[in-house]
Amino acid sequence: MVTVGNSKGLKIAVIGGGSSYTPEIVEGFIRKYEQLPVRELWLVDIEQGRHKLEIVGELAKRMVAKSGLPIEVHLTLDRREAIAGADFITTQMRVGLLEARKWDEHIPNQHGVIGQETTGPGGMMKALRTIPVLLDICRDIEELSPNAWLLNFTNPAGMVTEAINRYSKVKSIGLCNAPIGLQKRLSEQYQTPIEHIYTEFVGLNHLHWVTRIEVDGVDRLQEMLDNREDYSAKNVPPSEWDPEFLKGLGGLPSYYLKYFYMTDIMLEEQVESMKANGTRAEVVKRVEDELFELYKDPNLQDKPKQLEQRGGAYYSEAAVNLMDSLYNDKRDIQTLNVSNGNILDFLPANASIEVNCLVTNKGPIPLSVTEVPEQIKGLIHAVKTYERLTIEAAVTGDRGIALQAMVSHPLVPSVSVARTLLDEMLERNKPYLPAFFE
Amino acid sequence: MVTVGNSKGLKIAVIGGGSSYTPEIVEGFIRKYEQLPVRELWLVDIEQGRHKLEIVGELAKRMVAKSGLPIEVHLTLDRREAIAGADFITTQMRVGLLEARKWDEHIPNQHGVIGQETTGPGGMMKALRTIPVLLDICRDIEELSPNAWLLNFTNPAGMVTEAINRYSKVKSIGLCNAPIGLQKRLSEQYQTPIEHIYTEFVGLNHLHWVTRIEVDGVDRLQEMLDNREDYSAKNVPPSEWDPEFLKGLGGLPSYYLKYFYMTDIMLEEQVESMKANGTRAEVVKRVEDELFELYKDPNLQDKPKQLEQRGGAYYSEAAVNLMDSLYNDKRDIQTLNVSNGNILDFLPANASIEVNCLVTNKGPIPLSVTEVPEQIKGLIHAVKTYERLTIEAAVTGDRGIALQAMVSHPLVPSVSVARTLLDEMLERNKPYLPAFFE
Amino acid sequence: MVTVGNSKGLKIAVIGGGSSYTPEIVEGFIRKYEQLPVRELWLVDIEQGRHKLEIVGELAKRMVAKSGLPIEVHLTLDRREAIAGADFITTQMRVGLLEARKWDEHIPNQHGVIGQETTGPGGMMKALRTIPVLLDICRDIEELSPNAWLLNFTNPAGMVTEAINRYSKVKSIGLCNAPIGLQKRLSEQYQTPIEHIYTEFVGLNHLHWVTRIEVDGVDRLQEMLDNREDYSAKNVPPSEWDPEFLKGLGGLPSYYLKYFYMTDIMLEEQVESMKANGTRAEVVKRVEDELFELYKDPNLQDKPKQLEQRGGAYYSEAAVNLMDSLYNDKRDIQTLNVSNGNILDFLPANASIEVNCLVTNKGPIPLSVTEVPEQIKGLIHAVKTYERLTIEAAVTGDRGIALQAMVSHPLVPSVSVARTLLDEMLERNKPYLPAFFE
Amino acid sequence: MVTVGNSKGLKIAVIGGGSSYTPEIVEGFIRKYEQLPVRELWLVDIEQGRHKLEIVGELAKRMVAKSGLPIEVHLTLDRREAIAGADFITTQMRVGLLEARKWDEHIPNQHGVIGQETTGPGGMMKALRTIPVLLDICRDIEELSPNAWLLNFTNPAGMVTEAINRYSKVKSIGLCNAPIGLQKRLSEQYQTPIEHIYTEFVGLNHLHWVTRIEVDGVDRLQEMLDNREDYSAKNVPPSEWDPEFLKGLGGLPSYYLKYFYMTDIMLEEQVESMKANGTRAEVVKRVEDELFELYKDPNLQDKPKQLEQRGGAYYSEAAVNLMDSLYNDKRDIQTLNVSNGNILDFLPANASIEVNCLVTNKGPIPLSVTEVPEQIKGLIHAVKTYERLTIEAAVTGDRGIALQAMVSHPLVPSVSVARTLLDEMLERNKPYLPAFFE
Repeated sequence: MVTVGNSKGLKIAVIGGGSSYTPEIVEGFIRKYEQLPVRELWLVDIEQGRHKLEIVGELAKRMVAKSGLPIEVHLTLDRREAIAGADFITTQMRVGLLEARKWDEHIPNQHGVIGQETTGPGGMMKALRTIPVLLDICRDIEELSPNAWLLNFTNPAGMVTEAINRYSKVKSIGLCNAPIGLQKRLSEQYQTPIEHIYTEFVGLNHLHWVTRIEVDGVDRLQEMLDNREDYSAKNVPPSEWDPEFLKGLGGLPSYYLKYFYMTDIMLEEQVESMKANGTRAEVVKRVEDELFELYKDPNLQDKPKQLEQRGGAYYSEAAVNLMDSLYNDKRDIQTLNVSNGNILDFLPANASIEVNCLVTNKGPIPLSVTEVPEQIKGLIHAVKTYERLTIEAAVTGDRGIALQAMVSHPLVPSVSVARTLLDEMLERNKPYLPAFFE
Repeated sequence: MVTVGNSKGLKIAVIGGGSSYTPEIVEGFIRKYEQLPVRELWLVDIEQGRHKLEIVGELAKRMVAKSGLPIEVHLTLDRREAIAGADFITTQMRVGLLEARKWDEHIPNQHGVIGQETTGPGGMMKALRTIPVLLDICRDIEELSPNAWLLNFTNPAGMVTEAINRYSKVKSIGLCNAPIGLQKRLSEQYQTPIEHIYTEFVGLNHLHWVTRIEVDGVDRLQEMLDNREDYSAKNVPPSEWDPEFLKGLGGLPSYYLKYFYMTDIMLEEQVESMKANGTRAEVVKRVEDELFELYKDPNLQDKPKQLEQRGGAYYSEAAVNLMDSLYNDKRDIQTLNVSNGNILDFLPANASIEVNCLVTNKGPIPLSVTEVPEQIKGLIHAVKTYERLTIEAAVTGDRGIALQAMVSHPLVPSVSVARTLLDEMLERNKPYLPAFFE
Repeated sequence: MVTVGNSKGLKIAVIGGGSSYTPEIVEGFIRKYEQLPVRELWLVDIEQGRHKLEIVGELAKRMVAKSGLPIEVHLTLDRREAIAGADFITTQMRVGLLEARKWDEHIPNQHGVIGQETTGPGGMMKALRTIPVLLDICRDIEELSPNAWLLNFTNPAGMVTEAINRYSKVKSIGLCNAPIGLQKRLSEQYQTPIEHIYTEFVGLNHLHWVTRIEVDGVDRLQEMLDNREDYSAKNVPPSEWDPEFLKGLGGLPSYYLKYFYMTDIMLEEQVESMKANGTRAEVVKRVEDELFELYKDPNLQDKPKQLEQRGGAYYSEAAVNLMDSLYNDKRDIQTLNVSNGNILDFLPANASIEVNCLVTNKGPIPLSVTEVPEQIKGLIHAVKTYERLTIEAAVTGDRGIALQAMVSHPLVPSVSVARTLLDEMLERNKPYLPAFFE
Repeated sequence: MVTVGNSKGLKIAVIGGGSSYTPEIVEGFIRKYEQLPVRELWLVDIEQGRHKLEIVGELAKRMVAKSGLPIEVHLTLDRREAIAGADFITTQMRVGLLEARKWDEHIPNQHGVIGQETTGPGGMMKALRTIPVLLDICRDIEELSPNAWLLNFTNPAGMVTEAINRYSKVKSIGLCNAPIGLQKRLSEQYQTPIEHIYTEFVGLNHLHWVTRIEVDGVDRLQEMLDNREDYSAKNVPPSEWDPEFLKGLGGLPSYYLKYFYMTDIMLEEQVESMKANGTRAEVVKRVEDELFELYKDPNLQDKPKQLEQRGGAYYSEAAVNLMDSLYNDKRDIQTLNVSNGNILDFLPANASIEVNCLVTNKGPIPLSVTEVPEQIKGLIHAVKTYERLTIEAAVTGDRGIALQAMVSHPLVPSVSVARTLLDEMLERNKPYLPAFFE
């Protein structure tokens, strides 16, 4: 379609460029080059990530070299240099690294609560660690590339996006691989191109329901609800949905909703899995170590297959598609995390929601949702309450608000458990929470 | 103030007139006679309650005789006769009697869930049993006394009131003794008349927060939050609030909120109390038996002191005050259960809420709430979601909706527990749930 | 894209098939045949229109014959036969014919008020005549083709669509040629395909503002506001916009907004034009007579050029495009008249608005509007108030409500003028307003 | 009731103390002394008002002396001295004096538009002159008496109050004599005390409808609508309402609504009245001159009867009642101008509306409105749109916004008239509009 912008090509900054995911996004840029002419790709990381940045950065350079495309790959520890004049900025950070994630998962489990890095008390800690860092990055963007789009993958993506939209002027969109993942699955299952599929997402990041599924113009929602075993994600332990419950739910639940609807079974599985394999963080750590071993191989010029087992399949595809649509004004429909406006009439206008959007080069325009099933409203509002309090706690460093946030989370069973978790987790995250420990 | 209505005096119908509470309301009518000239008091009950109706009815007659007032007391099993031409109708029913309550409390406890007759799965069963009966009574009122006010005390009062407001044309108001109870307590504690106290209630029936407490023009909310041990209700097991949590909550919580905020402790207490004393239903049953023994005494001409230990203190005072204000257009402020309108902007207009109202003789006019603390919105919406699904299930007899309702309740930990509870409880309540077993 | 529906081809019913516009839509079906395989085209009209139906129907048959396509053209006076089993139904009716329009324009002018067939008192009369007839048609559709889409062009399209959506179960969409007309103009002006243009419409039918205009990704709104003389419609008398006013308005106004913003000048022009040429209705009558003379020519096998001067350019293109997108699930963006939902937060959910929609084969999904300029909210709400009262008057035949509607219209200067207009116009329209004269 | 605050008595500041109304408020303080123990009454004016301040100030002193009460009357030109530590501050200002008012009335009339000092273009000029001065006063209050209540009578009271609430931290309430005036009239007409009357106001200042009128518990709205000649205000020219129109309106209209509903007749009356008596400003000027002649009489120790003909009857009674209820936490119902919150769901939360409030010593709590008739919503929103744009113009001095405001006013017939009026009126008000002429 229409092509606008810098005629010499685009500057992209990837914050957290030393991540094991980087080869995915590099592959994406190479594949989409015709639509999305990247001229400069800046991979930026912090001092502790220098080693990984070098390994993955060298692989990126080899991948580009093989492609023969005129993309310059820059590696840097200087964030401001990477951000200055960028057209698109993505973040794939993990404040506190996998070590912090380990405790996000472990401490709750020890107290009989779901331990998960985006949902539950773990996600709250991740938000408290991450939001101040992201807002700090936004200060740089406001100064150095105020017209850039910030595409945020950093979890918990819903809260991070809302924090950015409320506390900065940066143009930001949150995104997740779940929507594209569902469409890929439907495309395969029904043997039809993705363009022939329509899915309507209602809810929040990692707390959505898919309330319309149309494939080749035929309503397939009920069929999908009946074949419930099919849509478990790889990085979420499997477990059985109650068929009558699903039938009445009015939408295909996000796999993260298992933590809310099957809390007992999921907790049991977590505890057993931890005994067998350690926390999910430790599992991921081993996978990552293996990946970096592979990346070091000077003969490797492609994204290795093994990366796909890492969990975040389609992340880079989602990112590159979004950049393409923003850059080229494609006006296709993508499911994104944006400010609510009037879409869900029971949430504030500035609350982030996950919703279908028409993507124009002025940004995403959310589509109305056809219908919000009565039975999901309470849970959406309960989790959004927790999210808003968490954001406020992250910005202020106020323990009192953090306690209210923790108590408000539907997976936390009581004030006394909330207090125990909060005290223990804040203490454990002390190095990453300056606002709480000044 | 202004006096309107039937110049010959008022006709009152008390549905469930055989209740042990009846002497309270009779005492209220005698005390308020000057403002509220009752001419006919109809106590109506069902066949199974005939014996209790006779005992308590005879006591009522003796009480009136002693007062020397020209009030006629009628006892009847014919509901339509009692309703015809009534000015005010109150309900104090217990569909399924205390036997049903016992199971409302017992079954959840057996599955590790709070067992309580208004909150949690027990309250849901109570709603399923009660709503159809109340709507049936409303059909009679629509026909026989369309201008009557129906004052509904029958629990769960919030859901019952919403069901009536949505599915009948009867003018109905739900009320609870908690608001007047708090004001009595404040009046005593600060040694000032109730007229000098202002309390603002926000939320739902049995799920409210008092967000403003002013005594003699001085803000006492924070002080009350600090003296948290003071405000436990007699019929709710005591247990300690976390002081920091209360401080940040922004409102004095209803004592029923302990079930949500201290689920673990409350459950433990219930289980222990059951071991020691049986269910709360069984305790109440013993108290009631003793009361009826007292009532039988032909020399008794007054409400016996022991009734006050029964639990629902001030119920009749609340009822008589409300009738007085409606009848005399008093325009005082009372906390009532009415339709939301625009008060809470995240709930539907026809949702029942508990809110301060100006009481005029055209009915209550809700007052704006000064502020709704962010931290309570999610829980209010979650419980209202459960309530609306429960009402829909009660009206339709649809098990699928009942399952969604049960799952939506914040005290029910998972779909599998919800299903177990629902199946067991529906089966146990079979005689009272014709819509589910047709 | 995806093709669904009747494999043997589509049945289309055109109500008001004897209209001079019919050759346009026939041409559209021929041109789009590959995407939209019409098998049966039913042109239906009333007894008074029999002669015109025959003339235009024969032309339609010659056009189809020339195309060589297997489309059957049916002419009928039996509406039910035409509707039964139809896939798409369009309406292009004029209850009361051009004679009624003449008075819609003439009477207001005589009292110093804008005389216009869709805006002002004329539009109100048109709505009162048309809504009951359309609702009657809807009763047939509910019975005979409940899955059909009713595409409503009949003016006042906003009110008619809202009436259908509120008082019937028919799936209906209102549409207007203004949006496609603007895009055609922009496409020509900027020499770029329509797909490279994005326009955002905010408001109501014939009362919209275009608040975003992007051409090849470049914001052109301000430029368009500066070249204000360019966008007058052919069937609206020209007249000059105040440049400073436009600059601050925040959106390109619909040409019908001249009646609101330049009432004095427009009225003067109407009065002068009437002196010179008679009412617009009379002008149109002459054009139509000439058209039908042309249509009679048995050698004519194409839509004659002269039809384009008739005024409703692009109507059939809009209709055929919409059918194509509904049938083929094209998911393109079209500007349509649909129920508001939450889009404009100050209007009721069931109010019709004109808004960009994604067109899927389950119907249009409205897009959020980026921003509603403060300065247009009052006028939108004022006109919508008038519209809702008019719809209520049309459905009930209540003169009191009709008076409130007339007074509420911003172009009616006082209650006394409203009363005069209403009395005179109701009387004149007596044959078409049975609900008012029973 | 409860008495709080400064035990030594209250400090009151009257800004615009040299007004001819001052004797009214002094009389009010004397009459209410027992409930409202005023210790210091500060009358403050500007240099140009020094002479009038001295005359009226001396009268005030004589009135207090006669009463024998320990109230100190202070006259000053130092606003900050008057404000410092005040408990209540009232404003009764006229920026530009009656000379400015004359042009507010005269210029619109010259262009065929209603000339009125609060409604129409005149009111807009008054708002542009007044809002910056009031906000300047608010800066002083924020600094010198942050806990004071500012009771604003200064017209246009709705816009001024909204401006204060949006652009300062001062606790402010707008009030008008219309509500108390209606109650006085009803009290007299039905021979019953005001306490037995309930009236519900819906709308904006000088743009309200009274949708409930209950006297001694009996609905009298329809009766009042039938006796329409009764309720014309003295300072508004009389003229006849259309009976059928009123019957269907659903509320008793404010007398200012005649300017909207009978624009033609009212304009004619204004033009004729101006020919006969000059503008209303000139009439008022003569009355004021006469009043000050009276005030000078050293033997005068009371408010002279003639003041009552001045027009603002009950203003001081309204003010003193409001202070009494705020100070003594009376919790009676008063009709006030406050922020909308959720009361009217189609207006922003921070829009000022005129609404019944419970007056507590923490401020007014708005009551829900029972129902908003459909037919008044559009006009309310149209005028509020004009008001919000006017406030924005006043604060920014932006001519473009001022033009949008003028065009948005329902009494201004077209953009060209708006532009003419705006240019002429801004020029005439140049000395009072520094923001526009910097």
